[in-house]
Amino acid sequence: MPEFRKDPVLKRWVIIATERAKRPHDFVKPKVEEKPAFCPFDYGNEHTTPPEILAFRPADTAPNSPGWWVRVVPNKFGAVNPELKAKKYGLGMFDAMEGFGYHEVIIETPDHNTHLALMDYKQVEEIIWAYKQRYETIAKDSKIQYILIFKNHGRDAGASLQHPHSQLIAIPIVPKRVQEELNGSQEYYGYKERCVFCDIIDQEMQRQERIVEENDSFISIEPFAARFPCETWILPKRHMNCFNDITEKEVKAFAMVLKNTLYRIYKALDNPPYNFMLHTAPVTGEGKTYYHWHLEIVPRLTNVAGFEWGSGFYINPMPPEEATKYLRAVEMP
Amino acid sequence: MPEFRKDPVLKRWVIIATERAKRPHDFVKPKVEEKPAFCPFDYGNEHTTPPEILAFRPADTAPNSPGWWVRVVPNKFGAVNPELKAKKYGLGMFDAMEGFGYHEVIIETPDHNTHLALMDYKQVEEIIWAYKQRYETIAKDSKIQYILIFKNHGRDAGASLQHPHSQLIAIPIVPKRVQEELNGSQEYYGYKERCVFCDIIDQEMQRQERIVEENDSFISIEPFAARFPCETWILPKRHMNCFNDITEKEVKAFAMVLKNTLYRIYKALDNPPYNFMLHTAPVTGEGKTYYHWHLEIVPRLTNVAGFEWGSGFYINPMPPEEATKYLRAVEMP
Repeated sequence: MPEFRKDPVLKRWVIIATERAKRPHDFVKPKVEEKPAFCPFDYGNEHTTPPEILAFRPADTAPNSPGWWVRVVPNKFGAVNPELKAKKYGLGMFDAMEGFGYHEVIIETPDHNTHLALMDYKQVEEIIWAYKQRYETIAKDSKIQYILIFKNHGRDAGASLQHPHSQLIAIPIVPKRVQEELNGSQEYYGYKERCVFCDIIDQEMQRQERIVEENDSFISIEPFAARFPCETWILPKRHMNCFNDITEKEVKAFAMVLKNTLYRIYKALDNPPYNFMLHTAPVTGEGKTYYHWHLEIVPRLTNVAGFEWGSGFYINPMPPEEATKYLRAVEMP
Repeated sequence: MPEFRKDPVLKRWVIIATERAKRPHDFVKPKVEEKPAFCPFDYGNEHTTPPEILAFRPADTAPNSPGWWVRVVPNKFGAVNPELKAKKYGLGMFDAMEGFGYHEVIIETPDHNTHLALMDYKQVEEIIWAYKQRYETIAKDSKIQYILIFKNHGRDAGASLQHPHSQLIAIPIVPKRVQEELNGSQEYYGYKERCVFCDIIDQEMQRQERIVEENDSFISIEPFAARFPCETWILPKRHMNCFNDITEKEVKAFAMVLKNTLYRIYKALDNPPYNFMLHTAPVTGEGKTYYHWHLEIVPRLTNVAGFEWGSGFYINPMPPEEATKYLRAVEMP
């Protein structure tokens, strides 16, 4: 049974994921990346995944058969499990909870060899619609506090399958980093009576030093205190604490900035591994006035990262102003 | 000039390290690890590092010549610089500070091909004495708030040189993770009037489920809410907030537990890349009653880590009780 456990000092929850339990030998890295012969996300292999929860497909095709353009399925080796309870218990001085939650995979396209940076805008929009539909449905489960939508691209960013996909994990806990963002932006609001993210957008638009992409509704920037080379944030220009409030027009604008930004990263860093994560308000709607959803993209250039895991203290060898120049210099298709 | 920058939402400081500025191309990973022909940390190459700050060497050898068994030098490409000022300034809505601080390298042995896990206890003790001497000296600079001692082992853990070495960064800021530990342990103390780390040690000794190594003065455990497979913490049994308060007898005991623990990790995971970091109180001495120094060891099994960077939310596929069994099963030399 997967279990949530809380660090008694940092109050940081982790999932001990027994469904994907590994032995030490499993972590010894293969020296050469083998090409897997079989991909469960390809057309014709739909029966090898758990049955689909959502699929965008022509009306005349059967569920779990080819024809779809975006498909959502439960993660076969889910870190959390919807059959469990969201009940907390003590273990001596420690606190734990059964590993209740939803873990889903958004298969972004039937095309095994493409990638968000290379898709057309329309396909990226469809993926965002799939995020939103799953968000809306899962948010109705009152035991769920937070819905994490994220992507691991490339083996070094934690992707175990090459086929383009993102993931969704819905849990009865607000992740620590998100809670810290809520607290920090609430504190700023308390002092200034303004949203800190709105202020950042205003200042970046005035200074024009760290803007990567921009349209009417969205902006992507290199953050002032970037932790990593080419770390990039995408923010809606309109103040909005919850991703789910996005309008149809904004989905289009978001897709455009997302695809263009990822294309610039793809070109400038030669298709680097990366993670992105959608930072949005808890499903309780906390932070209406002071929080502002956004997407954080972190290229994983592993020989840079070091002791940062242990300290929360980052050394970034590329000033974000320089990173902006490199990304803006990319020739767009 | 290196610069500290503060994230306005999370209040997390980063160093923008211009001395090691890189262009995007520098991050494209070499496919094969080349064996460098020249190592600045080998005997005979002492003139290629900045002049030594501390060396344990026979009285009849000259500084910056062979004969030493532990040697400390400034980092040639320091992330921070002792020539700068520790003055904060504003940049529009943002906060920054000149990159003042010390960045040193502790060369752990003249032997290029060994590693802490394989050294004899005596050599590990000497390395700990070097940490302590540098700590004591730098702590006298009243502009310094925190002294970080850490090690990156292996390229995937951020080590750019293979020769065994650790590092020290002294900065006018308390790192975020350390501040959070101070806050969390203070809160626990406020409620229980006991040190949370002392309580953890007591409980682990009663339960005997997660102890890896133990002697009179030190214990190493897999933490209850471990983020990573084989994440391991080493704690002094005596309540002590600052590493610098370690006694001569305790240095011996620490060296023994450190070496044995690293040996077990080395064997069980086939010499994995890892980071360790010494978590100790700020040099101001904060946390006398409630904080407890310790060393956190994190093996870097990169295909596991994923979106955790962005969320502070960890999925660990190996329960710490299992990890304990694997580490304890290692046959000791």
